[in-house]
Amino acid sequence: MKIGKVIDNVWSTKKDESLIGHKFLIVQLMDKSKEFNGQVIVAADLIGAGIGEKVLVTQGSPAKYLPNMKNTPIDAVIVGIIDEEVER
Amino acid sequence: MKIGKVIDNVWSTKKDESLIGHKFLIVQLMDKSKEFNGQVIVAADLIGAGIGEKVLVTQGSPAKYLPNMKNTPIDAVIVGIIDEEVER
Amino acid sequence: MKIGKVIDNVWSTKKDESLIGHKFLIVQLMDKSKEFNGQVIVAADLIGAGIGEKVLVTQGSPAKYLPNMKNTPIDAVIVGIIDEEVER
Amino acid sequence: MKIGKVIDNVWSTKKDESLIGHKFLIVQLMDKSKEFNGQVIVAADLIGAGIGEKVLVTQGSPAKYLPNMKNTPIDAVIVGIIDEEVER
Amino acid sequence: MKIGKVIDNVWSTKKDESLIGHKFLIVQLMDKSKEFNGQVIVAADLIGAGIGEKVLVTQGSPAKYLPNMKNTPIDAVIVGIIDEEVER
Repeated sequence: MKIGKVIDNVWSTKKDESLIGHKFLIVQLMDKSKEFNGQVIVAADLIGAGIGEKVLVTQGSPAKYLPNMKNTPIDAVIVGIIDEEVER
Repeated sequence: MKIGKVIDNVWSTKKDESLIGHKFLIVQLMDKSKEFNGQVIVAADLIGAGIGEKVLVTQGSPAKYLPNMKNTPIDAVIVGIIDEEVER
Repeated sequence: MKIGKVIDNVWSTKKDESLIGHKFLIVQLMDKSKEFNGQVIVAADLIGAGIGEKVLVTQGSPAKYLPNMKNTPIDAVIVGIIDEEVER
Repeated sequence: MKIGKVIDNVWSTKKDESLIGHKFLIVQLMDKSKEFNGQVIVAADLIGAGIGEKVLVTQGSPAKYLPNMKNTPIDAVIVGIIDEEVER
Repeated sequence: MKIGKVIDNVWSTKKDESLIGHKFLIVQLMDKSKEFNGQVIVAADLIGAGIGEKVLVTQGSPAKYLPNMKNTPIDAVIVGIIDEEVER
């Protein structure tokens, strides 16, 4: 998976009907220097993530792991929210 | 998925016969700074996108999600058009 | 798919026997600035492309779309030749 | 596979239930100059790797090679620990 | 496929048992300027390649094309050796 930060919602009225009912978020991935300045992607949100949260994202074929995704073109999915760093 | 901007049509007279009947567009993906200066790809268009429009693109195996793509080498597909930003 | 330019043939006497009978070409992909200075890959040629021609290339699992590729390690294939630009 | 160095644990309380029971580590991949300054990824750990160790990582569909991964969105897995370099 | 140069062996005593019996080599891929300064990967060697040799590498799901790889996490494999350039 990759680590990313949710930066926006996606607004798409005209889209493939298989995507209706899924919520999509724009996520900017962590780059090599561990800043959130990497690749910008769009991922289906299964977890209820909010803007500004740090998330775990699965990309590619493994993103289609749920039965209701089989016939969709989903290639990225948010599968976890990273805990806020506690004092350690 | 990735966000991209349609920049041109593809003109290919000599191509694999399985691609005949599909429409292909050249899309430049959003880069890390959120400009449309990223990787240039060619995607099948299922939505009726036009040049200059911002689109959602699925890449890799998940792009082959429709029955009529099973026996084609399609590895990228436009699955949505991003709404023009409204005042917010 | 990606857009690339054929830059050379591949000469490999010692190779996996499943690759015998396939023709392979070295292709340099289009980069972000739309020059042919991107990643260098090797693709199976199904179309009869020549050196200097601009081609459409499919990568990854979708490249294995023909029955005779099932048991080969082919991960890139030339599926079309881009028409020479006409005056427009 | 890629070579990477384990740099941290992942703390995610809110995650897809299919991921519960798997241990995930943050790995920074080797870059082109052979330093560990490449892409930062999150991989399931099957081997018992510790922070600071150099590991072998499999990405993409091949990462889902075990029966208990079939219905998970795992797209990266640590499959080996690189031996500390001996004098040679 | 990609073109790369074998730069070293991989030494990993502690690894997934499905990888035992396979030989792995470290390969540095050709970069955009056609030098061998690109991404460093680890690939299973089916051909008997040696350090310093230029090789053809298949990555991703297509790398798992042999029956004895089905239940392994192999995601890269050396499938050919590039012939030394002859005078031409």
